[in-house]
Amino acid sequence: MEKVIENEERIDIDVEVELNDCYVRLESYLRPEGQLSALLILNQKIDESLGFEKLWNAYHVHVCADGGANRLYEYLGDEIVRQKYIPHYIVGDLDSVRNEVLSYYREKGAIVIQQTSQYATDFDKCVKVLSAHFFSTNFAHSVQNSSQFNHGIDEERGILDIYTAERENWHVEKVYLLVLNAIDGRFDQTIHSITQLYTLAHRDSYYQVGYLTPSDLIFLVRSGGFTITYREKFLDQCIGNCGILPLGCPTTVLKTLGLKWDVENWSTSIESGKVSSSNRFVGRDRCYLDVQKPVVMNVELNLKKLLSYEF
Amino acid sequence: MEKVIENEERIDIDVEVELNDCYVRLESYLRPEGQLSALLILNQKIDESLGFEKLWNAYHVHVCADGGANRLYEYLGDEIVRQKYIPHYIVGDLDSVRNEVLSYYREKGAIVIQQTSQYATDFDKCVKVLSAHFFSTNFAHSVQNSSQFNHGIDEERGILDIYTAERENWHVEKVYLLVLNAIDGRFDQTIHSITQLYTLAHRDSYYQVGYLTPSDLIFLVRSGGFTITYREKFLDQCIGNCGILPLGCPTTVLKTLGLKWDVENWSTSIESGKVSSSNRFVGRDRCYLDVQKPVVMNVELNLKKLLSYEF
Repeated sequence: MEKVIENEERIDIDVEVELNDCYVRLESYLRPEGQLSALLILNQKIDESLGFEKLWNAYHVHVCADGGANRLYEYLGDEIVRQKYIPHYIVGDLDSVRNEVLSYYREKGAIVIQQTSQYATDFDKCVKVLSAHFFSTNFAHSVQNSSQFNHGIDEERGILDIYTAERENWHVEKVYLLVLNAIDGRFDQTIHSITQLYTLAHRDSYYQVGYLTPSDLIFLVRSGGFTITYREKFLDQCIGNCGILPLGCPTTVLKTLGLKWDVENWSTSIESGKVSSSNRFVGRDRCYLDVQKPVVMNVELNLKKLLSYEF
Repeated sequence: MEKVIENEERIDIDVEVELNDCYVRLESYLRPEGQLSALLILNQKIDESLGFEKLWNAYHVHVCADGGANRLYEYLGDEIVRQKYIPHYIVGDLDSVRNEVLSYYREKGAIVIQQTSQYATDFDKCVKVLSAHFFSTNFAHSVQNSSQFNHGIDEERGILDIYTAERENWHVEKVYLLVLNAIDGRFDQTIHSITQLYTLAHRDSYYQVGYLTPSDLIFLVRSGGFTITYREKFLDQCIGNCGILPLGCPTTVLKTLGLKWDVENWSTSIESGKVSSSNRFVGRDRCYLDVQKPVVMNVELNLKKLLSYEF
C-alpha cells in the first residue's frame, strides 16, 4: 500500500546496510577520497559561485571537453592565476576550442587528444579518456612518450578502439568524477548529461558521478538499496531541498528513510506529475532509498556556506 | 524497421495535416495570436537576454508566481520603467514575495490572490487562476468587484474549489501560455516544470504552453501526429539545434519529416541514452513528428537575432 510519512526535522535512521547495497558519502562528491578522481569541465560558462579553485584542488585529474578549455581560460582571466590551473587533457572533436587557447595549454603541458567521430559526444569521449588514463597501461605509455601526431591515437576513434579492446581486462576501482556545466545549457544537452548518468551506471559503474550546478548536486540513485551518508554539520550548514526524479522511466519508490516526506510503495512518473520535489533530508547522518528502477536525485547546496565549510 | 535518414540543409515537406493532428506555429510561442494569452513569471532571475519588454507587450495577461514578483520588480530597476509593467495577478502561498514589492504592485492595481495549500505548487495555482480568468464569469466578478479579504476567495484552496466546481462547464478555447524561469533553477523545480507540460496536456489541453530559457524554447509534442510550422526567414535567422526528449517514459518516434536526421520507428529512452539531441529543422517551412507517447522538444533560439527579428 502507498504511504507518505511526514517526519520531524531531525530523526535517527537505523539502516542496516546490506553488502550488495550501494553507499555514498555526500561530501565525497565535492571532496573525493584517494587517488582516483577527476574534474570534467564542459563547454558552458563556469559560474563564479562554484568555488572553482577549491574544487580543482580537490581533484587529481582535470579534463576539458573541447570548448570547455575556452571556459577555463576565460574564467581565470589573470595569467599568473591561469598557469596554476592547467588541465591534464583537452579532448573532443576540437571544433569549439579556440586556437589561442589550445596553443596556450599545449605549451603548458596539457595533452590534447582529438577524436572526430560524430557517433559520440565530447562528454563521452572525455569519460573514455579518463577510463584509459586510470586503467590502461598502453594509453599511459602512449600519452607520456609519444611525440607523434595526436599521441599516436587514431583521430577518428582511437580512444573508442582502446576502450573496446581493453575494457574487459581492466582491474577497475572506484573513480570519483565531478562534472561542471553538465546542466543549465541548451536543454537537449542537459538531458544528454542525464542520459550519461544512466549509461555510466550500467557500462562503467566504477564511476561515482556527480554534476555540480550553481543550485544543486545531481547524481543517480541505483535500484536495490542506496544509502547516502553525511555529517550532521554538513546537513545543517550546506544542504537544502532535494528531489527524487524518475527521468529514466516511471517507477516505484519502494521505501525511503530519512526524508521529510518518506514514502513506501510510491509510484512516481513525469507523465503523472507525481514526483517528489521540494523534499529534504532529515535523517541525522544518513538517508536510505530503495527504488525499483534508478532515479535521478538532486540535492540543493548552499554554495556560499560551502565555500567556508571545513570538510 | 528502424531508420535514420540524413537530409540536406533545406528540404520541402509535403505533409497532409489530418484533422485530428496537432498543429503549432513556432512563432506563436513568442508572439501569440488573439486575445487569450498569458505570460507567467516564476521565481528565478529574469535573464537580460530574453528581450523581456517585447515579450511582455506580446501577451495580454501577466502573472507572477509568488517571488516571481520580486524578480519583476528587481529586473525593472527604474521606477519610471517599472510602473509600465504591472502584473494583473500575483498568486501563490506568498511566502517568498517581499512586503515592499507586494504593496507596490497592489497599489498599482495588481490583484493579489493568496493560496496557502501545500498540495499544489505556485506554478499550478497560477495556471488555475489563469483558467478562471479566461473562462469563469464568477471569478471575474469576484476579482473586479470585491473589496473583501483575498477578493472573497478562500485563502487555503479557493481557486481549486472554483476550478473543480466549474471546469467541466467552461467553453474553453486555445490559450497561449509562455512561462519564464521554469527551467535552469533548482533541478527538482526544472523537472516539476517538465511534469506540468504533461499534466496540462491531459488536464487543460487548451493551453499551448512554452518555456523560454536563455537558450531554448521548450514544449510538448503530443502523440499522434504533430506539425510545427514557421517562416523560412525565422528558421534561417533565429533557430538552432533541437532535441526530442522522451522524459515521460521510453517511447518510439514513429516518423519525423523535416529534421536533419529524420527517423522512423526509432525507439528512444533516457535509460538507453538513445535520444535525438543536436538535431535541427531542415524542412523549409514545417516539420512533422509522430510519436507513440508525448515527448518534450527543445528548439534552440538565437535570442540576439530574435530581438531584431520582425515577426
